[in-house]
Amino acid sequence: MTSPRETTFDFTAEIKRRQKLVDERLSSYIDTADVGDENLRAAMRYSLTSGGKRLRPLLIFAAADAISADGEQYMNSALAIEMIHTYSLIHDDLPALDNDDLRRGKPTNHKAYGEATAILAGDALLTMAFSLLTRENTSPEICRQIIREIADAAGAGGMVGGQALDMAAENKQISLEELKKLHLGKTGALIRAAVRVGAILAAADAKELAALTSYAENLGLAFQITDDILDAVGDTAILGKPTGSDEKNHKSTYVSLVGIDQARQLAQDAVTRALAALCDFDGKAAFLRCLANMILTRQK
Amino acid sequence: MTSPRETTFDFTAEIKRRQKLVDERLSSYIDTADVGDENLRAAMRYSLTSGGKRLRPLLIFAAADAISADGEQYMNSALAIEMIHTYSLIHDDLPALDNDDLRRGKPTNHKAYGEATAILAGDALLTMAFSLLTRENTSPEICRQIIREIADAAGAGGMVGGQALDMAAENKQISLEELKKLHLGKTGALIRAAVRVGAILAAADAKELAALTSYAENLGLAFQITDDILDAVGDTAILGKPTGSDEKNHKSTYVSLVGIDQARQLAQDAVTRALAALCDFDGKAAFLRCLANMILTRQK
Repeated sequence: MTSPRETTFDFTAEIKRRQKLVDERLSSYIDTADVGDENLRAAMRYSLTSGGKRLRPLLIFAAADAISADGEQYMNSALAIEMIHTYSLIHDDLPALDNDDLRRGKPTNHKAYGEATAILAGDALLTMAFSLLTRENTSPEICRQIIREIADAAGAGGMVGGQALDMAAENKQISLEELKKLHLGKTGALIRAAVRVGAILAAADAKELAALTSYAENLGLAFQITDDILDAVGDTAILGKPTGSDEKNHKSTYVSLVGIDQARQLAQDAVTRALAALCDFDGKAAFLRCLANMILTRQK
Repeated sequence: MTSPRETTFDFTAEIKRRQKLVDERLSSYIDTADVGDENLRAAMRYSLTSGGKRLRPLLIFAAADAISADGEQYMNSALAIEMIHTYSLIHDDLPALDNDDLRRGKPTNHKAYGEATAILAGDALLTMAFSLLTRENTSPEICRQIIREIADAAGAGGMVGGQALDMAAENKQISLEELKKLHLGKTGALIRAAVRVGAILAAADAKELAALTSYAENLGLAFQITDDILDAVGDTAILGKPTGSDEKNHKSTYVSLVGIDQARQLAQDAVTRALAALCDFDGKAAFLRCLANMILTRQK
């Protein structure tokens, strides 16, 4: 009999394998994609292959696993959502926005390729994602559903809207409610979409989709709170970017609003709720459970 | 009996009506869309409603008309492609790219709303377009096809790729072949996609689609050549932007490469070929014929 501890260990190794698989597929996809200019391809490749956590692809796989145990077949959606995440980082880092020089321990895209190419690389990755989604291994009707899910999550009512709120909140004290709304868009929407897309691809029924959506919303919240905690007390070397940037930029964060101890408690509570949402799922939800626990203990 | 001249006149009036219809629908769509930040909505609205020619929506309608005579029903695709065109203008005008202050007689988006908001407004319009496309009045399979058509045309292998080539060509003499390749991406790809999407929505058969594609490719070429001519000898007041910018920016254009007279001839030849591609179509292709003639005589 396998102990719970060993089970967790196995899933951690499996997650690493899947991260590597996503890395490889992203790399081969961009190398052979129809890109009109080689400098543009290099810029897209640079940010796509700079070693992210691949959280959103992992969530697509894991949510599909929870329903039908064959998540990895939905590789196109996994690559597409990572392209959208990557484009958002490239544009967020631009001088006109967060003006960051480092990302994952390397110069940001505009530092490496110049601002114009960075803008175009972001635009191209966002657009490529939608082309990839039309090539997903599913029915046309499900395909239409997942494209809508992702477009709505990534756009003005989700991620881009949250980014606009984030900009408006700079150098301003905002309330915990406003902070939640901002993050619901900026990071929450795409995490939620990842889980829902995995579930929809695996033909989840309405009750399963609702439970997984609740899981995703709580996971997104926990993810953002730990992000704020890491920015306040994380290790620059592990993070690959300077800590303390929120304080320097006078940004309201969970840490600045409620303090580090309560922020940790809020993150723990959110993960508890995420796990509770999975109570009716069997062992096929093990990946999702493992990912929720990883959020709490992550160091980058 | 209606004379050919009167027929042309009627279609010109109909085109104006359709332009107005697109203007109104864009305006009402953005006013009620899910946008997380009102400043972001205002920036999106500003560029969407600043009076473009609506060429790409008109081409979707007209191509569908040529097959099935009911083009206007495909309004969502028409709005979507205009959103993509608008996003491309906003990003092209940015200081890091063309650094333009005026567009259609008004300050460019980043001049009116700042660079950060302009970048996000472009991102949001591009993303919103894909959400709209999933809502088109068609089957899921056709929906998937048109999304792929538009994503591939707008992305790294099409419009964004062409924009990257355009940047790389600045301050450099390029050949006529290189110029053609650049424009095939930068403006040609989305014009081609507009016609093909209209045709696909109206269930064109393979032969019809091939003929309409040839029409579109020649139309796109004619459009770009007249763009270069207008930049060289157009009227600033009618254009809504300064002329002579290509020369100032040392850009290779049809005018700089072959001279104004031969450029006019090339545009005329392309329109002739576009019209020839329609030879097997009946009166339902009148809109397409009218649009081809408008390209040649346009003053903005």
